[in-house]
Amino acid sequence: MITIKQIIEENDTKPGLIFDLSMQLLIVVSLVTFSIETLPDLQLPTRTSLHYIEIFTVGVFTIEYLGRIFVADRKIAFVFSFYGLIDLFAILPFYLSTGVDLRSIRTLRLLRLFRAFKLFRYSRAIQRFHRAFILAKEELILFFCVTLILLFLSSVGIYYFENQVQPENFKSIFHSMWWAVATLTTVGYGDVYPVTVGGKIFTFFMLMIGLGIVAVPTGILATALSEARNIEEINKETYNRK
Amino acid sequence: MITIKQIIEENDTKPGLIFDLSMQLLIVVSLVTFSIETLPDLQLPTRTSLHYIEIFTVGVFTIEYLGRIFVADRKIAFVFSFYGLIDLFAILPFYLSTGVDLRSIRTLRLLRLFRAFKLFRYSRAIQRFHRAFILAKEELILFFCVTLILLFLSSVGIYYFENQVQPENFKSIFHSMWWAVATLTTVGYGDVYPVTVGGKIFTFFMLMIGLGIVAVPTGILATALSEARNIEEINKETYNRK
Amino acid sequence: MITIKQIIEENDTKPGLIFDLSMQLLIVVSLVTFSIETLPDLQLPTRTSLHYIEIFTVGVFTIEYLGRIFVADRKIAFVFSFYGLIDLFAILPFYLSTGVDLRSIRTLRLLRLFRAFKLFRYSRAIQRFHRAFILAKEELILFFCVTLILLFLSSVGIYYFENQVQPENFKSIFHSMWWAVATLTTVGYGDVYPVTVGGKIFTFFMLMIGLGIVAVPTGILATALSEARNIEEINKETYNRK
Amino acid sequence: MITIKQIIEENDTKPGLIFDLSMQLLIVVSLVTFSIETLPDLQLPTRTSLHYIEIFTVGVFTIEYLGRIFVADRKIAFVFSFYGLIDLFAILPFYLSTGVDLRSIRTLRLLRLFRAFKLFRYSRAIQRFHRAFILAKEELILFFCVTLILLFLSSVGIYYFENQVQPENFKSIFHSMWWAVATLTTVGYGDVYPVTVGGKIFTFFMLMIGLGIVAVPTGILATALSEARNIEEINKETYNRK
Repeated sequence: MITIKQIIEENDTKPGLIFDLSMQLLIVVSLVTFSIETLPDLQLPTRTSLHYIEIFTVGVFTIEYLGRIFVADRKIAFVFSFYGLIDLFAILPFYLSTGVDLRSIRTLRLLRLFRAFKLFRYSRAIQRFHRAFILAKEELILFFCVTLILLFLSSVGIYYFENQVQPENFKSIFHSMWWAVATLTTVGYGDVYPVTVGGKIFTFFMLMIGLGIVAVPTGILATALSEARNIEEINKETYNRK
Repeated sequence: MITIKQIIEENDTKPGLIFDLSMQLLIVVSLVTFSIETLPDLQLPTRTSLHYIEIFTVGVFTIEYLGRIFVADRKIAFVFSFYGLIDLFAILPFYLSTGVDLRSIRTLRLLRLFRAFKLFRYSRAIQRFHRAFILAKEELILFFCVTLILLFLSSVGIYYFENQVQPENFKSIFHSMWWAVATLTTVGYGDVYPVTVGGKIFTFFMLMIGLGIVAVPTGILATALSEARNIEEINKETYNRK
Repeated sequence: MITIKQIIEENDTKPGLIFDLSMQLLIVVSLVTFSIETLPDLQLPTRTSLHYIEIFTVGVFTIEYLGRIFVADRKIAFVFSFYGLIDLFAILPFYLSTGVDLRSIRTLRLLRLFRAFKLFRYSRAIQRFHRAFILAKEELILFFCVTLILLFLSSVGIYYFENQVQPENFKSIFHSMWWAVATLTTVGYGDVYPVTVGGKIFTFFMLMIGLGIVAVPTGILATALSEARNIEEINKETYNRK
Repeated sequence: MITIKQIIEENDTKPGLIFDLSMQLLIVVSLVTFSIETLPDLQLPTRTSLHYIEIFTVGVFTIEYLGRIFVADRKIAFVFSFYGLIDLFAILPFYLSTGVDLRSIRTLRLLRLFRAFKLFRYSRAIQRFHRAFILAKEELILFFCVTLILLFLSSVGIYYFENQVQPENFKSIFHSMWWAVATLTTVGYGDVYPVTVGGKIFTFFMLMIGLGIVAVPTGILATALSEARNIEEINKETYNRK
């Protein structure tokens, strides 16, 4: 027989899976509601409907939260666990109607979506990702530090080239950093860009060096993921041989 | 002797290959015609010529369609198959002259171009791609979900930073999503960008995390493709040893 | 003793290397001269100096060209070879002073720079690149075709979404293609971008699919290059064992 | 007993680690101070505080510099070593108050941050990076050269297409190079972009070829790094077997 504990905490039974998916769906509904509320010029009836949906979702989340405490073996531990706190913060803003606008905390509900990855195959993919991250951790940290140093160097450089001609856009090294971020990530909004010959040549060199540094972590992560997959395969084979 | 069936359905005989390439060429001609028709200020003689080309291509496609039904072993199955339906939709808009503008359905002819990949070496490349996709499916789905969550989080964040200063560009979370898409994909049109210090720092952090997530699937796909090639090699060797 | 043939055609002797490097340097000088000439508002003395440099470089290139013919074993074959024709086109525009502006042909001198890669270690890198290209040829062609199809589909889609609101920027499918190129390569100049809600959502989906397709060839090439390096290693080992 | 030499030069003892981290922190403080100083409209009290912080950091750096000379086995060698010179340049601008603005030399302090990577695990990651760089050196140089050639070709091409219509933006080949850099790195600021049909088609082809060339080094570096990791693993195993 399937117990309530199994329905709430696991998803390998049919009712458990249905419960999980319904909760996921409700989180999405709640996030969409939250997004719609930010639209200006909403009609009063729409606002009212959104409010009713909010009451309904918070109601269900509250029951779910209490249920999870009820079925938890170690109740205190659950309340202070990562998911326990998120579940609490997801419903709390509704009950606290102080002067402060707590609505934005509702976006934390988003984090509850990660529960969806508890499914077996995804938990394996996450494990693989975790292994890949450990494999490449040092390179990633090294490249991240070098990226930061490069961002700072670019900012200082462009500040000296452009400050005189564009005092508004390159007001200080901090303002130049915004240019460095937008350029080295190749986003290039076009709100700030060098106009002096020196600044343009400097940009060229920074991009030549920078692209090879900012974009490498992505490649490292990708190859590490494929290595993690290989290790998994080898482990599986070793396990099967026994 | 080469039968009509071989000419129409296969491309390993010379007439079959010529038939296939002519049809591909005609599809391209038909798509170019369609594109030219969208040009404003076309002269009447040009319009007339385009119309005649359209009549000709549709005529040939109709004959080809009937021919394919004729040579198909299971006629009903072909009519309702993927390529059968595309072949039908490619000619249907021409014959139905209702009030509705059905011309855009003609772009479906594009999908007929995929028949070109029936050639042996490409079908192998597609198989390899298919294998790579299965290898990396879970990572791809995982990263796609995390990308969506990240897009939403970025939108919410930037909305709180920029809404007050730029109420027009960051009107609601939905409007902010457009910024999030253009930024995290590094397209950066420059129609919307943060102007507050908070928004700029937030963009920096989102880009640092985001680039490492949005760009990884590409790397995963590339390494999975090379692994699929290795598996193919191993299979071939195993086959040769027997 | 070192013959003239060795000096001109090879670079493993000291005079040969000096000859090669001097020629490379002169090509670069000639290209810089060519670029400076395009600057507007040049003073007359500068123009005169540039002209003298041009006379000098063309003079040396002519002597070199005649020398290469002289030392070639099969003279006719050299004249009609790839490098033979480039060497000719590099000096021809100077001698032909017809009404047509032939100066732009001088940029072909750039191609002569590829002779620099004749050095042993680079010729090995090029060979490796060649092997990588053959390894991944089918995937590259496949992805290139799919990229073209995707570009066309994006253009048609955005045309229907944006044509009504921005008749100037999205005048026809051809005009929309410019948007598709700038967007799917993530360049994003910002001269054309969707403004309708439909167009923005369409852009989102196209970018999600498109990035995973347009950027994959780069990854394929990179992994194929590392595989080519492995194959080389294996060949070397096999060779050493014998 | 821990000697002063160990504290200053090594970081495997507790006092050594604290000394190292304090110095790192002070460098960051000094760089932040330097950045804040570039802000316009600073109040006088802020300027004074910044000046005091500067005096303090330079004081500490001077003591550290003298200490490093004191504990060095070969004092002259240290003074003229890479880090020795950087340490000197980091404090020199403060003591020299000539007419020239030497403040920008203070950014060299940034390079002192690299001392942080002396920690064992990072020095291993750097070694790995070094090995990866040697593995892929030829490809990287080759691709860098081809990138330069491609940038030049793009500049020449776009100059001929756009110079007539946009004489201001594409004034000469040098001005066109700025466009080529911004486009082939996909930054796309949007300050210069082609407007003629020919220029747009040329851009399309250049991007198709260019992306596959400019972005490949990143991929090469990533795969080379993962290979370097494999070689390390093999070396470790070979070492353990002995």
